[in-house]
Amino acid sequence: MKSLVSINDIDKTTILKICQRALEIKTHGFSKTLPDKIIATLFFEPSTRTKLSFQSAILRSGAQILNFEADNSSLKKGETLEDTIRMTSAYADLIVIRHPEAGSALRAQQVSSCPIINAGDGTNEHPTQTLLDLVTILEHHGSLDGFTITLGGDLKYSRTIPSLLHALANFDVKIILASPQLLSLPDHLKANFQDKIILQTHSLKEGLKSDYFYMTRVQKERITGTTDITFEEDWILNKNLCEQYANQNTKILHPLPRVNEITTDIDDSPYQLYFTQAENGVYTRIALLEYILGVY
Amino acid sequence: MKSLVSINDIDKTTILKICQRALEIKTHGFSKTLPDKIIATLFFEPSTRTKLSFQSAILRSGAQILNFEADNSSLKKGETLEDTIRMTSAYADLIVIRHPEAGSALRAQQVSSCPIINAGDGTNEHPTQTLLDLVTILEHHGSLDGFTITLGGDLKYSRTIPSLLHALANFDVKIILASPQLLSLPDHLKANFQDKIILQTHSLKEGLKSDYFYMTRVQKERITGTTDITFEEDWILNKNLCEQYANQNTKILHPLPRVNEITTDIDDSPYQLYFTQAENGVYTRIALLEYILGVY
Amino acid sequence: MKSLVSINDIDKTTILKICQRALEIKTHGFSKTLPDKIIATLFFEPSTRTKLSFQSAILRSGAQILNFEADNSSLKKGETLEDTIRMTSAYADLIVIRHPEAGSALRAQQVSSCPIINAGDGTNEHPTQTLLDLVTILEHHGSLDGFTITLGGDLKYSRTIPSLLHALANFDVKIILASPQLLSLPDHLKANFQDKIILQTHSLKEGLKSDYFYMTRVQKERITGTTDITFEEDWILNKNLCEQYANQNTKILHPLPRVNEITTDIDDSPYQLYFTQAENGVYTRIALLEYILGVY
Repeated sequence: MKSLVSINDIDKTTILKICQRALEIKTHGFSKTLPDKIIATLFFEPSTRTKLSFQSAILRSGAQILNFEADNSSLKKGETLEDTIRMTSAYADLIVIRHPEAGSALRAQQVSSCPIINAGDGTNEHPTQTLLDLVTILEHHGSLDGFTITLGGDLKYSRTIPSLLHALANFDVKIILASPQLLSLPDHLKANFQDKIILQTHSLKEGLKSDYFYMTRVQKERITGTTDITFEEDWILNKNLCEQYANQNTKILHPLPRVNEITTDIDDSPYQLYFTQAENGVYTRIALLEYILGVY
Repeated sequence: MKSLVSINDIDKTTILKICQRALEIKTHGFSKTLPDKIIATLFFEPSTRTKLSFQSAILRSGAQILNFEADNSSLKKGETLEDTIRMTSAYADLIVIRHPEAGSALRAQQVSSCPIINAGDGTNEHPTQTLLDLVTILEHHGSLDGFTITLGGDLKYSRTIPSLLHALANFDVKIILASPQLLSLPDHLKANFQDKIILQTHSLKEGLKSDYFYMTRVQKERITGTTDITFEEDWILNKNLCEQYANQNTKILHPLPRVNEITTDIDDSPYQLYFTQAENGVYTRIALLEYILGVY
Repeated sequence: MKSLVSINDIDKTTILKICQRALEIKTHGFSKTLPDKIIATLFFEPSTRTKLSFQSAILRSGAQILNFEADNSSLKKGETLEDTIRMTSAYADLIVIRHPEAGSALRAQQVSSCPIINAGDGTNEHPTQTLLDLVTILEHHGSLDGFTITLGGDLKYSRTIPSLLHALANFDVKIILASPQLLSLPDHLKANFQDKIILQTHSLKEGLKSDYFYMTRVQKERITGTTDITFEEDWILNKNLCEQYANQNTKILHPLPRVNEITTDIDDSPYQLYFTQAENGVYTRIALLEYILGVY
């Protein structure tokens, strides 16, 4: 039984297969490859994009949604995650789970009688975000080798960053780390990807010299004890900065939602690739559901 | 690409076409005219009737629901309405939106890549309520011309009233305004419909002399600074008042929910038409979805 | 028009028919016996298991879910349950309702234009839980006659207990009551089932000498004014207690969710039957939906 708890659960060949299938669906249109399947979406945390794109993917592939509202649930009565998963896996053919605790998706997999897809577990991983990031680069660049990508913004608290790094390790790429000093990539992660990292900077401007600039939302609520009050202004990306400092063909990616770290004047500029990225979420998640449920 | 943001987006011919289609569905039964369509219901405000009747309409026509829970969403992370709509319109074929701010549906339409239906934007408009009001009158009266209608209750804060007035302007009807003084129709609206308004009164009893008495919920929470404490009692409609003051064939309409402004002794009386009105919500919304998505 | 408000709404023959149909579905697999049906799930109280297993049952039988979120609803505007039900019954073919007030399901049935299934009304009844309890015993024991069952735990506040007692009254069974003194079965219920009750004890250990031990969650939040602080420890069931005091073939049932009243070391032991019971919820609810909607 296949699951996707960590991006490391799938190898390079499988990553490529899923990405190519996603682009095939985008080109040829939807088809009902998963009739009669019931797919549970268990979200123990707020989510718009991930949840809606999974649910759209479920419906587009002919399956049905079994939705769980964490706020209206037996959690209030004190039930363990394990009991909730045991039960839900008896009612569905696959579970998509988001949960605030790191490691929760793995705990779910250990007791589930159906496959699990991790839609974000605390600050740990967000492997389906990574797959759609790769689909977007594959679509744009034509390959997952031979490009430079800057990981920018909040590299300390983001859960998309670890998953993306693990996936990129499979490919021939160069990585730039660009973040405010307080939000640098943790050392244990940096050590693992030392051979790919060609530059570490605290300057947004310097980070822009790259094929892809992957911006992440600065998670202000998690930063305490800092006196660096100029921090925010320096890390807002606008069209003017792109025009002055980016390469001519630099594309801006962002897992979204954004707050104010990318100004809206980039939306209609040639630098923007983040809306395409969001759109690719549906194709990617269909391709993943099909893979997990054995369509290919 | 068609949308329905304001009732003024559709002309008299289109209004009649949608109303007639609704009654045709009521007579001939449901059919799967919208297979494979995904329709997003984005409700940023509490709703029972409008949401459930839209969702029932979606399912009855063979389409699927992509539901968005505003309380469990990225709104908490600070995303703009525009970004939320851009994303959702990539995941669905049509968006039904309710939002507390006047003008929000128009903002949604300006960035959406799929059609928008306004299911209520603040105190501005509620065009689908108006359509089902008209369907109910058409069914009962046989025409949308040649009747007198009293708009009663809270004419100041209700959003159904402006939409209904705009629609009625297309037809040969007489309008009576009946409201507590503090809740009179705003002057700018009154000016626009001067030629149809045959009477303005602050007496509920006087307003009952009409073919249709359209009662609206008094939105107590929005009224401040008044000392008129007898206000409520005078504006509760009961069967006894109907029998004393209404015409023999007067029918009571109400967008519902009601609190206490219509007593339940009217429910089983010949005056009641509000439950039929609520039931017509499904037929009307199917007819509208079909129109927007190009079935006719 | 059939409904299931109380377990007493169906006689012994019907109970057996529904239970047998549930096991038939479990053996032969799902089939789309309810295409084009819309089934509303109205949950005015938190629920995971009951709600998800109903929704899974709805989808497995080819019907569609019309879901109502009580927290985001017109309840805030003051609408009565009766008005909400009148409306919902115009939008759906069947309503499944859970509500915190005893008697609410009956009130719903009195105004509904479609069938009602009671999914729990306060401390009053929970008839579908009872049906799945019986399905589980029928599957395991081969009959609903000729066994001893202990009702254990909170017999005072549980709503599953009254429904189960009423159903068991139809069959040739022996009942043991085992509860902390403060949580004894109310006298009026005890009087009704006097001929079946062979023992009443306040000892968990004594209660374990039975074919089935039906444990219920101790609803701490409802117990006030007690000084019996050792109460909890005495009523936690673990594997060691089973091995010392239970019969060799005793099976533990529980409506779930559990908090800590059954320790997890029983989960993989031969005593455990509660996960099977939870799984049977889907088959049972499909069989019930089919019965109510006239498939058999």
